[in-house]
Amino acid sequence: MKLLEERILQDGKVIGGDVLKVDSFLNHQMDPALFKEMAIEWKRLYDGCGINKILTIEASGIGIACIAGLVFECPVVFAKKSKTSNTPENSYSSTVKSFTRGTVNDIYVSQKYLNKGDRVLVIDDFMATGEASRGLADIVRQSGAELVGIGIAIEKAFQPGGDELRAMGIRVESLARISEMSTENGIEFC
Amino acid sequence: MKLLEERILQDGKVIGGDVLKVDSFLNHQMDPALFKEMAIEWKRLYDGCGINKILTIEASGIGIACIAGLVFECPVVFAKKSKTSNTPENSYSSTVKSFTRGTVNDIYVSQKYLNKGDRVLVIDDFMATGEASRGLADIVRQSGAELVGIGIAIEKAFQPGGDELRAMGIRVESLARISEMSTENGIEFC
Repeated sequence: MKLLEERILQDGKVIGGDVLKVDSFLNHQMDPALFKEMAIEWKRLYDGCGINKILTIEASGIGIACIAGLVFECPVVFAKKSKTSNTPENSYSSTVKSFTRGTVNDIYVSQKYLNKGDRVLVIDDFMATGEASRGLADIVRQSGAELVGIGIAIEKAFQPGGDELRAMGIRVESLARISEMSTENGIEFC
Repeated sequence: MKLLEERILQDGKVIGGDVLKVDSFLNHQMDPALFKEMAIEWKRLYDGCGINKILTIEASGIGIACIAGLVFECPVVFAKKSKTSNTPENSYSSTVKSFTRGTVNDIYVSQKYLNKGDRVLVIDDFMATGEASRGLADIVRQSGAELVGIGIAIEKAFQPGGDELRAMGIRVESLARISEMSTENGIEFC
């Protein structure tokens, strides 16, 4: 998606080998008008797929997912993180490693809000190793709902997450796919 | 706001003396169409106030704030939580106690995203003792920006937070104000 790629080139900052800082418009300060354009693009891509629920994970996925819910005209559920194996009763849960932070979190979703018959679009801001998306896909599987696809804002396509999920037969639509980046040479898109 | 009060009566659940569960539409599953109506109501209330930035706190404030940003046509910043006195450099920070969870968090906002000249609306899903709003107001003060007001979805008006902030001269607009609630007698609005 041209608009997002241009914004990444304009405002993103590559730090070290594989950190892309986009906190001026995506995950600390957020640009809701940009999120709406992104949501319209996912709506175009998943048109006719009967999506009736959006699933994301706290915290930085929530803003994008909520505006996507407005455009898809459906409810949005965010998976909550809990520190230990301490998820509430009557919830689906999974485990997510964060490679950037070196932490492991349990994530959970109440069984009330995801069920057989739901057609789910998973939305998240970043995909690198794909851990968060895999955890959310696992939760969708447990619920008996159908995972229609995954919508990612920025995929680090030089990391394996996206392609591993595609190899599992999951549709992944990333609006910007970075093939390589470095402080010296900047950012290249696929 | 009638629409929100009706939704609370329809889908909210009072648990014990002072917990109101609204996770079917507000803070686990979210209803973006409702959030848009709420945002339009805050826009009406704060019309002409020159708001150019919305500030909230992760996680459950983000969805409401992001849709408010769409309606106010301005960026949204969310304060991040960190466990210890371990906030990044070049950020404004404050401390927030959670009475429901019995935890204390530092919250912080990068100095890049809040500055003198900004006219800020703080948005959050709940107000009870007002700790989160006080922390966000403290961060606005540190930045030199102007705190135009606070927009709250549900205020537990039987707890002191809202009135304490009003007594400090801060404008607080809560879309639903609960005067009392119990499992036996249900929910009463102000």
